[in-house]
Amino acid sequence: MTMARRRGIVYLVGAGPGDPGLITVRGLAVLRESDVVVYDRLVHPALLLEAPRAERIFAGKAAGRHLAAQEEINALLIARASDGLVVTRLKGGDPFIFGRGGEECEALRAARVRFEIVPGVTSAVAVPAYAGIPVTHRRHASGFAVVTGHECGRDHDLDWAALAKMPALVVLMGHRALSTITRRLMHHGAPPSLPAAIISHGTTPRQRVITGTLATLASLAGGAGLEPPSVLVVGEIVRLRETLEWFTPAGNTESIVWCGDPDHARAASDGRPAAVAGPVPP
Amino acid sequence: MTMARRRGIVYLVGAGPGDPGLITVRGLAVLRESDVVVYDRLVHPALLLEAPRAERIFAGKAAGRHLAAQEEINALLIARASDGLVVTRLKGGDPFIFGRGGEECEALRAARVRFEIVPGVTSAVAVPAYAGIPVTHRRHASGFAVVTGHECGRDHDLDWAALAKMPALVVLMGHRALSTITRRLMHHGAPPSLPAAIISHGTTPRQRVITGTLATLASLAGGAGLEPPSVLVVGEIVRLRETLEWFTPAGNTESIVWCGDPDHARAASDGRPAAVAGPVPP
Repeated sequence: MTMARRRGIVYLVGAGPGDPGLITVRGLAVLRESDVVVYDRLVHPALLLEAPRAERIFAGKAAGRHLAAQEEINALLIARASDGLVVTRLKGGDPFIFGRGGEECEALRAARVRFEIVPGVTSAVAVPAYAGIPVTHRRHASGFAVVTGHECGRDHDLDWAALAKMPALVVLMGHRALSTITRRLMHHGAPPSLPAAIISHGTTPRQRVITGTLATLASLAGGAGLEPPSVLVVGEIVRLRETLEWFTPAGNTESIVWCGDPDHARAASDGRPAAVAGPVPP
Repeated sequence: MTMARRRGIVYLVGAGPGDPGLITVRGLAVLRESDVVVYDRLVHPALLLEAPRAERIFAGKAAGRHLAAQEEINALLIARASDGLVVTRLKGGDPFIFGRGGEECEALRAARVRFEIVPGVTSAVAVPAYAGIPVTHRRHASGFAVVTGHECGRDHDLDWAALAKMPALVVLMGHRALSTITRRLMHHGAPPSLPAAIISHGTTPRQRVITGTLATLASLAGGAGLEPPSVLVVGEIVRLRETLEWFTPAGNTESIVWCGDPDHARAASDGRPAAVAGPVPP
């Protein structure tokens, strides 16, 4: 019993931005050794196949809605780890960029449950990259800011006048608030002609990109029927896409293979081969 | 000959923040299939062992110093890919966060050389995470900014008054300019009592963390003889380290194993086992 309790641990693992090949080597190793996987909505189903014998618990509907739900997740992690189990808390992107990873760790520490962080590739950088937009560039942006669109309607610690002055701005979860965000940036002095892009389902075969300006993007995205999840990018860096666009969502599936059983993988991803081991150089 | 030329491609791969286990699954697969690896100074030597038969070219001394050196790297990538080879350009962190990944892609596109981006775990997020500092937190930071300390001395596109108003600020490559940066933030209205931390060799067994305030950090770091590379973090989020500190650099090596030949790995990392496959749950 003492032995079992000592083994219990929670790994907070970043699953990456969508493409399952962008999980880290360490993250995948941890996932494969887990007894329990508690996962969010945006985690690619192919990753769950890497822990076929683990108890798999979907926490997506609950996460981010209200405090009680988060407290239930905290309690679940604590309970399973206290039973001596190896628990992976699998989150989209990076566990410490929004998504309440810090709060989960605070709860684990208060309960004296061991935890480790396995950082992930954040959507804030990788989704623009797959759209051909580097978030920094020597000629266009010496830095960038990352915020969440969820904070738009409330009185938060974000100074929008300051955000309007950043050379590049990335907004996660900004789909619903898109027109509010672009208007707010213009109100605070960002030029209406500033290039902007919104990327839906970035890094996946369903990726779609709409580019425009602060003045036009919201109506262009609305007209195109773009779906969440999406990443908004604002700044001169968006122009680089004209030169650097490289990822063709449809074509990409051909060069991708699975590192394990291919039948297994196809079952997980709507008939498409999954991307965990890819690519194979042509 | 036509076949060979068609095969040529450059993969820009993020090697992650230091811990070699934080390379992505896709990045590692690409590396293992490469004919040529062009790598930077901060890439962990254990990763190079994953491409033992590739031509391995160190580009670290040249990178970031002067334009000619960058042009030499661009020419090298173009030449090798034009010979029909599979080339991995392996960069610390993420290829599009500083480090001129965008410029390399522009040169490749101009030369009609195929390229793909494999995003990486950025030091801007993962190094604070290993120090127990989440870059966002619902109570402390609804967003963060990332800049490079190299831009401090020049007249760049960074508005330091705006940076001083961000709830959290991460500065990469800010070691030499540390006192300039902290003074500049205070000059632009950030309180001298604002918590700040500098993390040296983050995510590796050599990780060291110094915490203080904007007023005290530069002298504390100087007195401690902290070495580059380092990551500076400024904001209330730094206080979370008191609760969330979890990574013990010395102890961590024990739980880490290598996925390939252990002798191979030990040879690469100064007698320490490498971390590509780690961890094994206890």
